[in-house]
Amino acid sequence: MIGNLIKKIKETKAPICVGLDPSLKFIPDFIKREAFEKYGETPEGAAEAILTFNKGIVDRVHDLIPAVKPQIAMYEQFGIPGLRTFKDTVDYCHEKGLLVIGDIKRNDIGNTSASYAEAHIGKVKIGGNSFSLFNEDFCTVNPYLGSDGVKPFIDVCRENDRGIFVLVKTSNKSSGELQDRISDGKPLYEIMAEYVEEWGRGLTEDGYSEVGAVVGATYPEMGRALRKLMPHAFILVPGYGAQGGKAEDLKGFFNSDSLGAIVNSSRGIIAAYTMDGYKDNYDEKGYAEAAREAVIRMRDDINGCI
Amino acid sequence: MIGNLIKKIKETKAPICVGLDPSLKFIPDFIKREAFEKYGETPEGAAEAILTFNKGIVDRVHDLIPAVKPQIAMYEQFGIPGLRTFKDTVDYCHEKGLLVIGDIKRNDIGNTSASYAEAHIGKVKIGGNSFSLFNEDFCTVNPYLGSDGVKPFIDVCRENDRGIFVLVKTSNKSSGELQDRISDGKPLYEIMAEYVEEWGRGLTEDGYSEVGAVVGATYPEMGRALRKLMPHAFILVPGYGAQGGKAEDLKGFFNSDSLGAIVNSSRGIIAAYTMDGYKDNYDEKGYAEAAREAVIRMRDDINGCI
Repeated sequence: MIGNLIKKIKETKAPICVGLDPSLKFIPDFIKREAFEKYGETPEGAAEAILTFNKGIVDRVHDLIPAVKPQIAMYEQFGIPGLRTFKDTVDYCHEKGLLVIGDIKRNDIGNTSASYAEAHIGKVKIGGNSFSLFNEDFCTVNPYLGSDGVKPFIDVCRENDRGIFVLVKTSNKSSGELQDRISDGKPLYEIMAEYVEEWGRGLTEDGYSEVGAVVGATYPEMGRALRKLMPHAFILVPGYGAQGGKAEDLKGFFNSDSLGAIVNSSRGIIAAYTMDGYKDNYDEKGYAEAAREAVIRMRDDINGCI
Repeated sequence: MIGNLIKKIKETKAPICVGLDPSLKFIPDFIKREAFEKYGETPEGAAEAILTFNKGIVDRVHDLIPAVKPQIAMYEQFGIPGLRTFKDTVDYCHEKGLLVIGDIKRNDIGNTSASYAEAHIGKVKIGGNSFSLFNEDFCTVNPYLGSDGVKPFIDVCRENDRGIFVLVKTSNKSSGELQDRISDGKPLYEIMAEYVEEWGRGLTEDGYSEVGAVVGATYPEMGRALRKLMPHAFILVPGYGAQGGKAEDLKGFFNSDSLGAIVNSSRGIIAAYTMDGYKDNYDEKGYAEAAREAVIRMRDDINGCI
């Protein structure tokens, strides 16, 4: 699957993905009104509003980008209807030719981890049938439990031609409490990076492995060091834009082939119409058009630096 | 909420919980047959079989135990219908007077973490309404992202009188790859334990905090050390039984008040009817009765050691 991502990045000349992390507060009133009229101010209404919002965004950006990254927490917060919208969003993005990175940060041990992996990026067997349920192309994985928790995902990647991104150095302020601790003379995020490189061995396409890493744009020096430690890992880079990461900080996340990283922006794209630099030109009905402009600016900003 | 757990442990004299982690392979054929006749060999059929199975277990054990621990991965593997069964299981357990520890191991940063917390142990606001969606009493939380990821859960605990169990030292073989690493002269699981004790400060009932810890029965010496480091934290102890933890190993997880830990068994209870010591006495129709006997044996085994 990483080969597909590389192909689409080359086609679009855009090493970026759009985070479909809709919070109700970003969703234009006209969309919420229609959904709430139909379903009331209920989880069903919220789920309907999100789906309509997402489709609007996807319709106006799908030709510009290789992939989207829906954050499942923003859907799970609305319970079963929300999770149905997560699944419908994945399907809609696939119809529009986009790859989907499910930002699920799941993890557990052994068979339990395999259950998550099969549900999200593999197939689940029921009697004589098998089903691709959430059907993402990639998903994010939390490594706190060690190899026992990650290897079942890798097995599922191998069987189904999918990929994962393992959390290595996250973009948040307190990520260092655990991830920066020095052990055996090096920070834990470097130790995790060595695992990532090892886990991906033998599972490569076009020089990159199906086992990638998450490294926040907010830590550019660490990104540079991690790039070297994981030469075969694609890096999923959150934290650009709203979280403070700038394009000039991103150069070090890429390899000399201008590949090896995909930068995510969520709020900065999907809520662009509410932000300085956009809100004077777009009203809420123009939210998707503003998202399109924000994608183009982001793409050009990043391409200017790599 | 930790006060409720303590009260129920005292009432039942059983510091144990039953892991409702149904794999299709443990579910008796007569249950699967009926569900598949109705819904086919589909996610809906699997979800129906799990719900019937769970209700059978709960009906026969609810008077003996304080709490259950459904593992959400075993439901999520069947997609939306599976997650609906997770929710229906939580509701059914509540009807029967049980507390529910959602084993969800969720985590993310900031608002995203808050979304998980609100969905699982809090309330989600939609317009003028608010909803308790999955409505567990406690849930498990992964700490890899540091305080940013855990504190939103703690805020939701405070507002809704709920609790969490933070992964400190997990029961699996490879847990040490990260968790045992020495940093500043001590293993990471001890550093996490210090965070757990600190995070729970000011949020206590009956001497214990709403912020507990997960420590595997398979690591009894570490359990003893962690018990001392987190005097106010309840420890959720997986790994007893099928994973190899024995009752004699568990003493150190408890405080001198015979409280402070709750030991989970999943397969060892819910699949008891398939195991040596039970299978000669129970056929598949007796699966819930076998589970009841397994709960009684486990309770007596553990009470004999603490």
